[in-house]
Amino acid sequence: MTTPFDAARPELASLLGDRLVTTLADRDLHGRNETYYPLTLPDAVAYPETTEEVAAIVRVCNAHKCPIVAYGTATSLEGQHLCTQGGISLDMGRMNRVLAVNAEDLNAVVQPGLTRVALNEELRATGLFFSVDPGANASIGGMTATRASGTTAVRYGTMRDNVLALEAVMADGTIIRTGSQARKSSTGYDLNHLLIGSEGTLGIITELTVRLHGIPEATLAATCRFPSVEDAVNCVILTIQSAIPMARIELVDEQMVRGFKKYSGADLPEVPHLFLEFHGSPAGVAEQADLFATIAGDFGMEGWKTATTTEERTALWAMRHKSHYASAALGTGGHIWPTDVCVPISKLAEAVLQAQRDAVTLGLTSTIVGHVGDGNFHAGISVDPANADEMARAEEFTNALAKTALRLGGTVSGEHGIGLGKQKFMQAEHGPALAYMRAIKTAFDPNNILNPGKILPALD
Amino acid sequence: MTTPFDAARPELASLLGDRLVTTLADRDLHGRNETYYPLTLPDAVAYPETTEEVAAIVRVCNAHKCPIVAYGTATSLEGQHLCTQGGISLDMGRMNRVLAVNAEDLNAVVQPGLTRVALNEELRATGLFFSVDPGANASIGGMTATRASGTTAVRYGTMRDNVLALEAVMADGTIIRTGSQARKSSTGYDLNHLLIGSEGTLGIITELTVRLHGIPEATLAATCRFPSVEDAVNCVILTIQSAIPMARIELVDEQMVRGFKKYSGADLPEVPHLFLEFHGSPAGVAEQADLFATIAGDFGMEGWKTATTTEERTALWAMRHKSHYASAALGTGGHIWPTDVCVPISKLAEAVLQAQRDAVTLGLTSTIVGHVGDGNFHAGISVDPANADEMARAEEFTNALAKTALRLGGTVSGEHGIGLGKQKFMQAEHGPALAYMRAIKTAFDPNNILNPGKILPALD
Repeated sequence: MTTPFDAARPELASLLGDRLVTTLADRDLHGRNETYYPLTLPDAVAYPETTEEVAAIVRVCNAHKCPIVAYGTATSLEGQHLCTQGGISLDMGRMNRVLAVNAEDLNAVVQPGLTRVALNEELRATGLFFSVDPGANASIGGMTATRASGTTAVRYGTMRDNVLALEAVMADGTIIRTGSQARKSSTGYDLNHLLIGSEGTLGIITELTVRLHGIPEATLAATCRFPSVEDAVNCVILTIQSAIPMARIELVDEQMVRGFKKYSGADLPEVPHLFLEFHGSPAGVAEQADLFATIAGDFGMEGWKTATTTEERTALWAMRHKSHYASAALGTGGHIWPTDVCVPISKLAEAVLQAQRDAVTLGLTSTIVGHVGDGNFHAGISVDPANADEMARAEEFTNALAKTALRLGGTVSGEHGIGLGKQKFMQAEHGPALAYMRAIKTAFDPNNILNPGKILPALD
Repeated sequence: MTTPFDAARPELASLLGDRLVTTLADRDLHGRNETYYPLTLPDAVAYPETTEEVAAIVRVCNAHKCPIVAYGTATSLEGQHLCTQGGISLDMGRMNRVLAVNAEDLNAVVQPGLTRVALNEELRATGLFFSVDPGANASIGGMTATRASGTTAVRYGTMRDNVLALEAVMADGTIIRTGSQARKSSTGYDLNHLLIGSEGTLGIITELTVRLHGIPEATLAATCRFPSVEDAVNCVILTIQSAIPMARIELVDEQMVRGFKKYSGADLPEVPHLFLEFHGSPAGVAEQADLFATIAGDFGMEGWKTATTTEERTALWAMRHKSHYASAALGTGGHIWPTDVCVPISKLAEAVLQAQRDAVTLGLTSTIVGHVGDGNFHAGISVDPANADEMARAEEFTNALAKTALRLGGTVSGEHGIGLGKQKFMQAEHGPALAYMRAIKTAFDPNNILNPGKILPALD
């Protein structure tokens, strides 16, 4: 049987030469993922080097109805980068340059394959930084496509707030620009925000203008512990309500502490913790920390420990960023089923406690770690994908957590996105609005070549 | 000839009774605007009281292809609320309730006809406030539809950042909900941001969840003057780059000062000024003001004058908010052609100086006042709509300003929107992306009943 890729292949090969790769090794690499989805081989991997080349590839794919899925660093957590309907994995890794640093305008123009760490290295001499920090050293294109977020969103916003402008290749090869380098605009429909979070299903991002922020004059990180998760979360709620401009405020539950001890050798008592960071002037940071400590004292906070040197802070956040692997270390299966939800902050304690109870009831080992200042938290369930019963219970857990989030007025994902795993919740979360998402997809990509089978559940 | 409204009228009358009004007085009131557009009578005015009623009205209008234009306070500046193709002016004034204040979650659920001042009055006892302040006491639905902004956006964001969730009636009467009360989400296409700024062309907003902010512990307002606009703007640029968290930073050029003197009796020398506000703790506010003064000193700042009491601050911002009328007071025609652009902040001085030169060259009296921390500024050209030559020169001025903004990497409107007046710039600003805006409009509103003739220029 001739596949759409077979039909597109000669034209793609003449376009890309040896940058169209069909070796099993390369397909295997691009078919992997960090979570529990099975290996999913693309038909081929393409390595474009310019926007015009992306447009040419897309035009060929569109003519032959060949699926095309943008690939960054494969750190997405819901299988967003997997070619589940075959076709081309479009590896953006060679489009990884910083095109401009506009320090005066606090922005940078970058290519999508650039990683956030690489961007921050390039920015080192400028006194500026790119704030969004999902943990993984993800590509900025991928972070935009999944509307990524992370530890600093409480202060500096998510990708939604930090992508000013995009260049994208649409399904017929048209190259469009959305947004501008101005800080705001009210000129027509917000296509910029429509593309952010569209997971490569509406267009392929080929260039981005991202906001930068000034590195604060002073930074203070701290850890502290609480008698219970409820105390820790209630402290967070009051901190946010008191408008203390937290740069980071992360909940680490007792299971997650166990994971950090096992994986990173952390020296922490096995009780719920908050990991914190304050940014500002030296006096401002001290004032913020004092205010926080006063609030926290009312919730039984103990063990206040600051990290003022860069090395101490780096060690703290490196440990935090390894929560995925630390969660995996708790179980015997070596894998993690990661899931996240986001709820109104007043409902955070209820949601977290419900998740902890559900894990116990289902006999699962699950950590909870969260960007709690946003009402967003993660559960990392240790699983062995070969254990069908455990996998079924993990799925039951994620279903229950999603239902809890919706019941509490929240959303089934704060930052991981929909991809494959959360399509089943789209109708429940969006109701009649889902039809309008479908209408956009149909209008923008009538041949359904851009990351087909993602975000929108199949119609029965 | 039977109009679409004639066809829809019996059903609408039976639905609304005496809340469907066709008197000339009411049509006249809803056909006016604050700027230079001619009186534009709707066929009728409808006063819905519930979402379900809006849905029923829209269904009738859709069946008869009768235009329907949501009406808030008629303070939009590009004719957004005018029924240029006849049909129904949908006055949302009776849907003006606060449905919930969720103080713990820092949000409020409101109806679209509620004004921002009324919301802030309701919030008085809570210690919270709704931050977006475009000057006019606009309705929150209208502010959302035009993606309004204003003096505090530099610190608290625009409507884009402050509308968490919407309920809207779509063209076929379907009621959808976008967003949620969670602070962030990554579950599918961002319909919430698509509706924000869509000027009633994609759906009628019937309910909103808006973010609230804590009233700062301390507030300090101040005015100061500079030798030149360039000095004032360069001071702003360095202030923003230094990450001083300005709550307000407004440029007032020498002409605008003249207007304030004439209209409000302000006691200010006729040189460029900045009007400022600092929010924070008492110590934080003092620190911010000191930092600002140090920067400003390098740009020749003089006449630093603080306003610490609520009365002084209110007087200052009331004067600022009357810039529209103060601009009108400078001319003889009694009207203002208001326009705004937004540029990257590094280009702000160039854009403002070019605008001032263009006004002189064209023999126009124009003020400049701006939310310069965002790179956004307004020109208010005094015009007499009966003076065709002056109107032609005013149009030439706005055309030149729009071109300047685009040349400098900015946008033809930071906050006024497109409406009727700026459609001619849509192709130049958005290029091939405009076709994707049209595709959304066609998919969402195939009969083109929702505010037809706005935002998207007619195809030749």
